[in-house]
Amino acid sequence: LSLFAARADGDGHVVLVGPGDDAAVWRPPASTAVVVTQDVLVEDVDFLRSWTTPYLLGRRAATISLSDLAAMGARPALCTASLCLPARTCVDDVAALHLGLVEAASASGCRLVGGDVSATAGPLVVDTVAIGTVEEGLILRRDAGRAGDVLAVTGTLGRAAAGLRLLRDGDGAAPPPAAQAWRRAQLEPQARIAEGMRLAASGVLCAGDLSDGVLVDAARTATSSGCAAELWLDHLPVDAELRSVFADGWAELALGGGEDFELLFAAADQVVAEVVATWPASLAPITVVGRLCEGTGVRLFEHDGGAELPLPKVSSRHFA
Amino acid sequence: LSLFAARADGDGHVVLVGPGDDAAVWRPPASTAVVVTQDVLVEDVDFLRSWTTPYLLGRRAATISLSDLAAMGARPALCTASLCLPARTCVDDVAALHLGLVEAASASGCRLVGGDVSATAGPLVVDTVAIGTVEEGLILRRDAGRAGDVLAVTGTLGRAAAGLRLLRDGDGAAPPPAAQAWRRAQLEPQARIAEGMRLAASGVLCAGDLSDGVLVDAARTATSSGCAAELWLDHLPVDAELRSVFADGWAELALGGGEDFELLFAAADQVVAEVVATWPASLAPITVVGRLCEGTGVRLFEHDGGAELPLPKVSSRHFA
Repeated sequence: LSLFAARADGDGHVVLVGPGDDAAVWRPPASTAVVVTQDVLVEDVDFLRSWTTPYLLGRRAATISLSDLAAMGARPALCTASLCLPARTCVDDVAALHLGLVEAASASGCRLVGGDVSATAGPLVVDTVAIGTVEEGLILRRDAGRAGDVLAVTGTLGRAAAGLRLLRDGDGAAPPPAAQAWRRAQLEPQARIAEGMRLAASGVLCAGDLSDGVLVDAARTATSSGCAAELWLDHLPVDAELRSVFADGWAELALGGGEDFELLFAAADQVVAEVVATWPASLAPITVVGRLCEGTGVRLFEHDGGAELPLPKVSSRHFA
Repeated sequence: LSLFAARADGDGHVVLVGPGDDAAVWRPPASTAVVVTQDVLVEDVDFLRSWTTPYLLGRRAATISLSDLAAMGARPALCTASLCLPARTCVDDVAALHLGLVEAASASGCRLVGGDVSATAGPLVVDTVAIGTVEEGLILRRDAGRAGDVLAVTGTLGRAAAGLRLLRDGDGAAPPPAAQAWRRAQLEPQARIAEGMRLAASGVLCAGDLSDGVLVDAARTATSSGCAAELWLDHLPVDAELRSVFADGWAELALGGGEDFELLFAAADQVVAEVVATWPASLAPITVVGRLCEGTGVRLFEHDGGAELPLPKVSSRHFA
């Protein structure tokens, strides 16, 4: 029973066979490479049901996979998802979870075309796959950085980690608008699709997403690229309220919190300067936060050329 | 950290970015459609750990997704998998599970290029994605059958269901060679990749895999195709030992057992005659088992033109 008939999207993507057959069939645009990513979320490890809604969980699950496409510079084409549902799950919750998946896919310009469902005696599991396309010369890779490249990020850092703290400990001294923004950053992250595609089109070759925090992801990018990274604490784009509410721990949240799903990229000075100079105001803003350099590992400095600081302990993104 | 460097396969598939980046990137052959399927297996619902090994579980998980590619006539290109691992899982078991996934993919001519891993407080979950390619005119669809088409299957029916009975109840009266074959059919199914591609190349347009048994899958094919199906009990390819060991229940095993992962296809008489006449001995043999006809639903007859029989109760493929 095909719920989706074949139809052309604006960009030439065509789903030839949709849900109801043994598999989905899709015709990618001519001469593009296909990007594939899969991410699993497990209840009580990656999320708590009491902190979110089934709809937002579905949105978040799809967004996490779509963020990986953004980090490759890819245009989303399809999503699929497997659900493992505890016996207590009510039908309305399944429908809301499904709607969240569908709408997050749609917001990124692609469609949910299939997946699988199983019962489980254990926690709820949502495992999402996102598939996109990219021109072969415009792939954003982790391993394409070079010593001397500037490191920069999209958006702000630490909001999702701060939101997790508030969900766990209550809002405390956080001003209500900031508290709301931080909780939303945790529960309703955005995939930086347009930003990734624009970076790729602007000559950037090296990027990744900040699923594990800028400290871990800068180290990962540096290692993949065969060099070291330095980060400049005072340059990190962090909400002023975050610095004041978490006076003792803001650096840990900004550097190690993770789940912001912003992009971290590396490119030569003149490429970054050109990117910044021509960056549309409608996209998440870009901030230079450090540099790749010769050597191995990651080091933290007050600012470019400033005093070296000890690395903070990086907290786990898991509850377990 | 890319474990896979870019390299060309024999058929022109190229993995450009492998594990270690945010996503895998792959260049499909020019002018092919891309086929995507995802299947989740949950411990104690879809399998019992005491009946299998981590290695065989990995093989089986990948094979179930690869069987969906076979049912579309597709050539496998990539697999990815998410694992949710209980805290008690030992590293050797994870390595064996991973090896099973890798080897099943390799046996079907493709590679495991990524995935995700999470802890879980619940049962083990293996969620596999298989991606393949097919020429657009050679897609095997569920909805492409026509009233009057012959229905035929590859291989034998009921072995996997019989194997499940033996695993649950012990071998009983089953002769040891048959018992071993049936347990293997349950625990080590084969994906009929070569068979699917050959059917597609031979002019067959309509096929599906027998994940849920020929009765359910014939009904699904007929419904998708806007017609009815009849099945001929005496024609079903069933081991003689299965008929004797399960004297009272063999028809239920053969019709409703499921998990044989053979292919069911529909085509005009002369197409099927040509397929059978030119079918290589190295592939799973083909047997005509019924016909699509005008109307709706599925009916069972002793043989072509014989007496109508009551439909057996179809057992669930789940333990729960």
